[in-house]
Amino acid sequence: MTTPHLLVDPTKVEANTTRLHDHLTALGSTLRLHVKTAKSVDVAKIVFRGGTGPITVSTLHEAEEFAAHGFTDVVYAVGIAPDKLDRVRALRAKGVDLVVLLDNVDQARAAASAGVPALIEVDCDGHRGGVLADDPALLAIAGALGDGVRGVLTHAGESYYCRTEEALVEAAEHERATAVRAAETLRAAGFPAPVVSIGSTPTAHFARDLTGVTEVRAGNYVFFDLVMAGIGVCTLDDLALSVVTTVIGHREDKGWILTDAGWMATSRDRGTADQPVDQGYGLVCDRDGHLIPGLLMTGASQEHGVLSMRQGPLPHLPVGTKLRVLPNHACATAAQHDRYHLTTGDTAWPRLNGW
Amino acid sequence: MTTPHLLVDPTKVEANTTRLHDHLTALGSTLRLHVKTAKSVDVAKIVFRGGTGPITVSTLHEAEEFAAHGFTDVVYAVGIAPDKLDRVRALRAKGVDLVVLLDNVDQARAAASAGVPALIEVDCDGHRGGVLADDPALLAIAGALGDGVRGVLTHAGESYYCRTEEALVEAAEHERATAVRAAETLRAAGFPAPVVSIGSTPTAHFARDLTGVTEVRAGNYVFFDLVMAGIGVCTLDDLALSVVTTVIGHREDKGWILTDAGWMATSRDRGTADQPVDQGYGLVCDRDGHLIPGLLMTGASQEHGVLSMRQGPLPHLPVGTKLRVLPNHACATAAQHDRYHLTTGDTAWPRLNGW
Repeated sequence: MTTPHLLVDPTKVEANTTRLHDHLTALGSTLRLHVKTAKSVDVAKIVFRGGTGPITVSTLHEAEEFAAHGFTDVVYAVGIAPDKLDRVRALRAKGVDLVVLLDNVDQARAAASAGVPALIEVDCDGHRGGVLADDPALLAIAGALGDGVRGVLTHAGESYYCRTEEALVEAAEHERATAVRAAETLRAAGFPAPVVSIGSTPTAHFARDLTGVTEVRAGNYVFFDLVMAGIGVCTLDDLALSVVTTVIGHREDKGWILTDAGWMATSRDRGTADQPVDQGYGLVCDRDGHLIPGLLMTGASQEHGVLSMRQGPLPHLPVGTKLRVLPNHACATAAQHDRYHLTTGDTAWPRLNGW
Repeated sequence: MTTPHLLVDPTKVEANTTRLHDHLTALGSTLRLHVKTAKSVDVAKIVFRGGTGPITVSTLHEAEEFAAHGFTDVVYAVGIAPDKLDRVRALRAKGVDLVVLLDNVDQARAAASAGVPALIEVDCDGHRGGVLADDPALLAIAGALGDGVRGVLTHAGESYYCRTEEALVEAAEHERATAVRAAETLRAAGFPAPVVSIGSTPTAHFARDLTGVTEVRAGNYVFFDLVMAGIGVCTLDDLALSVVTTVIGHREDKGWILTDAGWMATSRDRGTADQPVDQGYGLVCDRDGHLIPGLLMTGASQEHGVLSMRQGPLPHLPVGTKLRVLPNHACATAAQHDRYHLTTGDTAWPRLNGW
């Protein structure tokens, strides 16, 4: 098979899935899988044991394609652009319970007049969009939505910057408490708001209490990556995704091994650059997935990778050697490819790229 | 049309093409278009005025697809992995003059035994691979290739870090002189080495003399981008590529406008971060392409963009407003999409992604 290409170990996807399932079950909650990381019906089928559970999407293209495969309980978790409501209505007319997200009155009026139900985005940590739980805008938006208020949604995006277990547990509890408070405000004002949706891969794993929460969203955890390992959400052994590459040359004068996987194959994502241990463009494993100690992908042009050692001499890796690179950010690396090859040798899984 | 999507102004592609064509013609050389930026047969047809001129590819997939459209003079400018030679031979058997690139004896032996001609990569600035022009390895590689020596290829990749016109002119001359010197070494040893191939978008535009050079490679210049404008190779008016996005919300407390174009649409490339003026994830224009002074895309998550001002108050851009973002790096941004929409409203141009 030509290099570079993506490789997935399905047994690791299963183990990651079981771990989060058991954790959420013990806390009395359930998963709404975020399909934005894998964008793969095959991965979702592993998560739902062959079934079609509730999903979160990041694009309407994902919503349409997953709906065609029987996934009819869908939250589109990017603030709705009003001119996308026609596509939303078309899916709803086919029986898909597609719910949108919004955080302002303009969007709420548009959703209400299109007859599309919505979750109100609540900001728990200043990460991105959303209204604050005690902002009067919450009730103004609900008023504009009327019967279309489905509930609230919060995403603790800043949990990616937590550095201790204590901080992660606290971020998870703050995410929960903020969402529940906002839902209670809506209910006190007469809006039923049945859904309280929270989640991020770090907080989903470090939640100790999910009282009042009706669903937890996570997606990255199906593969995990070096950023998640750096936060402490997983170990390097849990990483299910890698980029397979071939050695094409050496620059002994510079301490470099050159490969045929550049940023086109890994993405430009350098999420670990902000972490205590910068892993470059990725850690390097042999073709069977065993880490080669100290070897990093330190440079990338479009179709060239540069490998070098943190310290010490380069290992002997002749031209033609196959290697695996563990990525910084699974969502970004996978997005550079149109399919997943499998360690089992089974038929590749397609990805649903685009909008 | 849904957002985000890529938008190309074909009149700017034509103007960029004419400018480089005239420059190279005046210096007595010709272009070998690098198709890795646009990955588009339609763009190549503009460059070659409807014809099928010589091209450079970054993947064998590009070689195969362009060959199917009549482009039969092709250099694959990534060091060859020996197990890719079967695909190269299959194309050559169809009449495509596909030439590979290499910089070591292992590759040269493999190419020779496959009967595939090659250019020897020469390093002029320590950017990536290649042998130094005075390294005895040059003749050892030629010896292993035998009749397969087609010539030399150099890429002044470090020219991206030049900050003055003088430095760019010097980088271009050094690229030329290094390649010519290596070719003369080969010829003195009895290898005909008819091809002397050099190029990068900055040096192609700042070359003052191309004596001894038989072809110049460039690709980014068809679109240009903020990195090229920062180097001084083009003006902001020359940028032919943008990402169209929709405003989905505001965080007045933070000075943010939120959009539906995140890093999935722009890529994670932040090439201007290393330049004197950091342009964030991109400069922002209105829907017609007029710059909105001071407005930048300063943050990105997967499907969310954050816009903010360098200084001063945010402009009034209500929910639903369409905007264009000018990218840092056209090659990387275009790679996030499968087609180009056109300012003329004509049928979209497909891209040839993958390997």
